Amino acid sequence: MITFEEAFEIVQNAAKLTLKTERVHFIDSLGRILAEDIFSDINMPPFDKSAMDGFACRKQDIGNELKIIEVLPAGSIPKKNVGKNQCVKIMTGAIIPEGADCVLMVEYTDETPDGNVWYTKKSTNTNICYYAEDIKKGELVLSKDIEIKPQHIAVMASVGAVQPLVSMKPRIGIISTGNELVEPDLIPSSSQIRNSNGAQLAAQVVRAGAIPNYYGIAVDTREATFSVITQALNENDVVLLTGGVSMGDFDFVPEIMIETGVDIKFRSIAVQPGKPTIFGTFQNTTYIFGLPGNPVSSYTQFELLVRPFISRLMNNSHLPKTIKIPMGGEYRRRKSERKSFIPVTISSDGKVYPVEYHGSAHIHSYVFADGIVSIEIGKEKLEIGELVDVRQI
Amino acid sequence: MITFEEAFEIVQNAAKLTLKTERVHFIDSLGRILAEDIFSDINMPPFDKSAMDGFACRKQDIGNELKIIEVLPAGSIPKKNVGKNQCVKIMTGAIIPEGADCVLMVEYTDETPDGNVWYTKKSTNTNICYYAEDIKKGELVLSKDIEIKPQHIAVMASVGAVQPLVSMKPRIGIISTGNELVEPDLIPSSSQIRNSNGAQLAAQVVRAGAIPNYYGIAVDTREATFSVITQALNENDVVLLTGGVSMGDFDFVPEIMIETGVDIKFRSIAVQPGKPTIFGTFQNTTYIFGLPGNPVSSYTQFELLVRPFISRLMNNSHLPKTIKIPMGGEYRRRKSERKSFIPVTISSDGKVYPVEYHGSAHIHSYVFADGIVSIEIGKEKLEIGELVDVRQI
Repeated sequence: MITFEEAFEIVQNAAKLTLKTERVHFIDSLGRILAEDIFSDINMPPFDKSAMDGFACRKQDIGNELKIIEVLPAGSIPKKNVGKNQCVKIMTGAIIPEGADCVLMVEYTDETPDGNVWYTKKSTNTNICYYAEDIKKGELVLSKDIEIKPQHIAVMASVGAVQPLVSMKPRIGIISTGNELVEPDLIPSSSQIRNSNGAQLAAQVVRAGAIPNYYGIAVDTREATFSVITQALNENDVVLLTGGVSMGDFDFVPEIMIETGVDIKFRSIAVQPGKPTIFGTFQNTTYIFGLPGNPVSSYTQFELLVRPFISRLMNNSHLPKTIKIPMGGEYRRRKSERKSFIPVTISSDGKVYPVEYHGSAHIHSYVFADGIVSIEIGKEKLEIGELVDVRQI
Repeated sequence: MITFEEAFEIVQNAAKLTLKTERVHFIDSLGRILAEDIFSDINMPPFDKSAMDGFACRKQDIGNELKIIEVLPAGSIPKKNVGKNQCVKIMTGAIIPEGADCVLMVEYTDETPDGNVWYTKKSTNTNICYYAEDIKKGELVLSKDIEIKPQHIAVMASVGAVQPLVSMKPRIGIISTGNELVEPDLIPSSSQIRNSNGAQLAAQVVRAGAIPNYYGIAVDTREATFSVITQALNENDVVLLTGGVSMGDFDFVPEIMIETGVDIKFRSIAVQPGKPTIFGTFQNTTYIFGLPGNPVSSYTQFELLVRPFISRLMNNSHLPKTIKIPMGGEYRRRKSERKSFIPVTISSDGKVYPVEYHGSAHIHSYVFADGIVSIEIGKEKLEIGELVDVRQI
């Protein structure tokens, strides 16, 4: 059995970056992974620009009465130069007229009875945003491989990058297995439970920026399982299969994966929950994860192992981040042969607290969880005040 | 001028919860706000269930050779009772047969030559998930007003809540103003800049779980501005208008808002950036924010003031959270009359660092930012090691 860190490494290194790219309208690019560098086609600001509403004049004339020679809204071109004891009434964003070297803020000015302007303070900042001080024409403004956020859309807008190139979303096939399962819209009989993993994984896939394809609950025969795995491998970039991966007599999924041509890279990980997690590759272009049937195990291994893999496939340079936060409550466990992942809440006092958790079938423990923290092999306790890495969920 | 906290309070209290609700398929409910309590229609587990693959038997028979009387996959109903020195080969998730009170893990068993089972350890956990230990029929499993995450979708699946009631998404009208603006697909002339606010706000609205309606760049005349504001107020739940809200001669937006029937609640906030931020209500059912024209100001006030307001309108009980993280670098400012918001990165060492920031037109400062921290009125410095509230973005 390998460690979680070894499994993570194997999974990340297996990813061949074969996803195609596509151009989308920049307004629709939120959450996509940028697949090209973006350069500015203009200088920003494109001219010396007033940062304030006020009066553009010469600094050396502060203290004198100034005559207004022009009124200048944003978007207009100045017609006059500013000379001694002259000023231009100017709006935020407008072009600084020739001759002026500062803008007096309107809040600190008075008008004289004959319509001139009088500055009530002794000195001023220039209040000018200078030509090209933020960005120069040709400068790199967005690097490829970032996940696009609203502020990046603003940058694209400002440089006219209205059709950015982004990675295609990977297609993720989802297969549930288990004779005891019925779909959520049915009433389970006495030996059945509803399938919660399929829908949960579909939602996790959407949140990871990919496209879920749900294949339903596989009939629990070798033939049917072989056939649905083969179909899913051929129709997707990644296949997620839940259930049928532990040591029970009816858990023939790993064997069938091999029969379909999957090269299994590992069959279990020293983690809790999620030990019977399988990973394999198919013809070096498609990937398959066998996740445990318990909803908490499946949820956790998706977030910690599969989601960073999907990010990697899209060439996202930022894997999901952890944040270091101190423990507000203690956590103890009796066995420490495996790395454990435990659900926590992040409290307003800046600390994390473990939530009540009955085990890997107890998905309700995650209802209030904000994050997952881990406890290493050999460690039985997280102390109050101990700094832990929190993966927000 | 009011403080940010006063403005936040006014905005939050103004929200009348008049949004309608709708039923959606639970698979499509990710990110929506749940508008009903959800109760379980079943007990979970619905029966005493094996937590392991192994052999169900009587604890008192540990140490004896056990005869396998049945093989029980998940989803099947046991046909036999387990008696003295008998066992049932059982798979994870299957029903515990009558008579058995534990499951011996398959990993710790051997088979004898005549096909009986021998347990290699001296004691065992029960390895049984007991009937209804996680959830009882009729129990509340999800409370209304939560934002739906994948784990909530799993809970809905498990209790058959396949058409949950959720809040309708608010419609948010977006109007840009400013004669100097051209849309991003055009080449700006020498006195123009591209409109980056409109697209940025549309993306922020989508991320906040609402629906953007973009009205374009308003022609800078009183008539045109009056007409587009009136139209937007009548077609949306909230209107966002950028530009035209400071003290320039051509900033007639506040006057026009009043003419359209808007009751202005405040006209500026003691913050940096975002001082000239306006908020008003229209016929007590529609709301309007006048945001500054600078993209950083508009971005920041949307995240800190408008986004929590949209959450409130949808009755989301969880306003966007801040996390307490220590400063990794120092931050200083010269003036302290206003509360300042500064972009930061959250580093892997568990600290936050201010990013280079030229001022409110410098949207590129936010390209690498992970969060916003604030510095209070009267405070000129954030020290290294000081714990600050970080709003992640």
